[in-house]
Amino acid sequence: MMSSLVSVHEAWTKLAERVDKLDSELVDITHAHSRVLAEPILADRPLPPFDRVMMDGIAIRLADYSAGQRSFVIDGLHAAGDPAVMLIGEALEVMTGAMLPSGADCVIPYELVDLAGGVAQLDDGMPLQPMQNIHLAASDSPAGVSIVKSGQLIGSAEIGVAASCGASQLACYKIPSLAVVTTGDELVDVSEKPLAHQIRRSNGLAVKSALEAEKLAAVDCLHLADDAEVLAEFVNSSDHEMLVFCGGVSKGKKDYVHQVLSELAGEPIFHGVAQRPGKPMGLWQLADGRLVVALPGNPVAVLAAIHVYLKPALNLMRGVVVNAQMVRLSEEFSGHAAFIFHVPVAVLGNAGVVKVLRAKNSADYAAAVGADGFVSIPAGGAGFNQSVPWFR
Amino acid sequence: MMSSLVSVHEAWTKLAERVDKLDSELVDITHAHSRVLAEPILADRPLPPFDRVMMDGIAIRLADYSAGQRSFVIDGLHAAGDPAVMLIGEALEVMTGAMLPSGADCVIPYELVDLAGGVAQLDDGMPLQPMQNIHLAASDSPAGVSIVKSGQLIGSAEIGVAASCGASQLACYKIPSLAVVTTGDELVDVSEKPLAHQIRRSNGLAVKSALEAEKLAAVDCLHLADDAEVLAEFVNSSDHEMLVFCGGVSKGKKDYVHQVLSELAGEPIFHGVAQRPGKPMGLWQLADGRLVVALPGNPVAVLAAIHVYLKPALNLMRGVVVNAQMVRLSEEFSGHAAFIFHVPVAVLGNAGVVKVLRAKNSADYAAAVGADGFVSIPAGGAGFNQSVPWFR
Repeated sequence: MMSSLVSVHEAWTKLAERVDKLDSELVDITHAHSRVLAEPILADRPLPPFDRVMMDGIAIRLADYSAGQRSFVIDGLHAAGDPAVMLIGEALEVMTGAMLPSGADCVIPYELVDLAGGVAQLDDGMPLQPMQNIHLAASDSPAGVSIVKSGQLIGSAEIGVAASCGASQLACYKIPSLAVVTTGDELVDVSEKPLAHQIRRSNGLAVKSALEAEKLAAVDCLHLADDAEVLAEFVNSSDHEMLVFCGGVSKGKKDYVHQVLSELAGEPIFHGVAQRPGKPMGLWQLADGRLVVALPGNPVAVLAAIHVYLKPALNLMRGVVVNAQMVRLSEEFSGHAAFIFHVPVAVLGNAGVVKVLRAKNSADYAAAVGADGFVSIPAGGAGFNQSVPWFR
Repeated sequence: MMSSLVSVHEAWTKLAERVDKLDSELVDITHAHSRVLAEPILADRPLPPFDRVMMDGIAIRLADYSAGQRSFVIDGLHAAGDPAVMLIGEALEVMTGAMLPSGADCVIPYELVDLAGGVAQLDDGMPLQPMQNIHLAASDSPAGVSIVKSGQLIGSAEIGVAASCGASQLACYKIPSLAVVTTGDELVDVSEKPLAHQIRRSNGLAVKSALEAEKLAAVDCLHLADDAEVLAEFVNSSDHEMLVFCGGVSKGKKDYVHQVLSELAGEPIFHGVAQRPGKPMGLWQLADGRLVVALPGNPVAVLAAIHVYLKPALNLMRGVVVNAQMVRLSEEFSGHAAFIFHVPVAVLGNAGVVKVLRAKNSADYAAAVGADGFVSIPAGGAGFNQSVPWFR
């Protein structure tokens, strides 16, 4: 039933090739964190928009000091938010964030000034520079240039920059809708008390929480009976942009996913990957273009697939290429003779090194608790300090 | 006005000492991702709850094979979700996830079986083991033990494990309410068109997005006039559990934050930190215990404080100790002669190395675009490959 196995690299490449770029939509800045920009953010004004005072202190004409003047009568206070003024007298007190008074070309911080009776006294031999403590207009960027590129994941710095540019609405890639379909007649809802031969469903919630936390997809969790007609009806009627099956993809007598998808979509793009866990993983593409990823029901295989395949593919749909970083292993891991082994890891105090969380068996869910993603151990295993790709 | 400077280490320690652990609340499992467990998740049943078949194939009594039997009449199909059965005949077909039929003690996958006419034929000399391909009841854990510890940050693996244990509601630390108060009469809203001497507010939205994305706080953004009475009235009437001021904390003539907080809360716990950016940072504690963090208005200083102080402190309130990982620098950074320098960095292909995003000046916001957190460069600078703490 399963075609010959493809490599992990081949499986990823075939999936990545078939992923379509999403459309964009306008998102309010207060909801834009963790989204991806579909258009650049442009500076609507020069940055900074005016010669901006960077220290609290006094503003003078440097030429006066150079000519020997040491006492400067303070002509008033010029604060951030005050409209433009001119330096007509000898000095103005200026506050951080204020526009530099026109005519002034030097700001001296309070620490270096002796201020008394409305007069500022300066020492001899101060190393004053023209435009010191002044953030020059347009020195960070002129108006109209792209400050944040299209394709940038939006974090707090990008939110701040967008706000300062007046981008209260940001063009972001849409969030695709995805259905996670669990099958398996032994599964009951999390709120139910399972009978002796039953277990509770967990894969749907794991996938949903992982993808929604990063705004990679809007996920519906569905559970369908081990019934070919029910599965076919769902695939035909669903309006989700991507389908993920968990379970029913192997060689069991009640595993209908392969049969149903092959009837509806034809030959799999691949079915069977040289990896543990997750060997029965398959990929189909329906005539209307929708991708269907079929995973085994083993919860560790599902967690691994979230990190190694689903998150990178959904990122690709919004234009983000996630290259797995290379990390070193804190100890030897024997791995699998012929297959790539995906294992959960925990980060250590040194950011380049991870510790493998060893499982008792391939379905030992609890070993993944506390994991910071998965690494892919090459066939044959990996030694102490060997670099392996890390999927967070 | 500013007390003598404290070190970054001292500032963090004084903040961490005053942080209170939050109360807990029950959270539905569908909303629990990124929260922190306030109570352990216990296995409500042994894991797995029964001797669980791990491969699709046939179940036999190993003793029959050892005694020389090679043909086994298939007595029926036993699938996942079927109630317990007994192996009465010679063999049963069993599916992954099914209960092991009582009496059987060996599962042989289809790949190794010659099945025809309702009879399974086995080769001579198969290296069969007792209980092979069977996930033994309670082998991962007995009932009643803690599967996920209190204090664990909840990710997709923990959601999956919680679901399988029937924990549809999880005891999590509450999300504290926090107000970010920007001051500065030069600031206008993101949706407004600033006049020549004005700029748009960005710090509040940056703090809000960073903290809410990790469910560290529920953040209200407020903007108050540079007016001591207005500030005092807000501090007295606010019911937020923590206050963060951005701006107004320096030596300017319109910087009222120090004056107001000192009147209401007494001496600062510290005011002035030997760091760039963010030297005027201060911390006060009101009589009712509320902490007030005062940051300068420089947006890069605010971003640095989010990573170095606010996120670690809010994590501590929910019992998570965030130890900054050590990363190496991809190139030399000259830093500051006497102060610790917090600079934005980007991760590289090797997980242990980061690249400093160099800014043109201390208020150059755009340099932080694309940053993966901040590193703290020691006074005097840091060389190529030197390890520095990384705050993500």
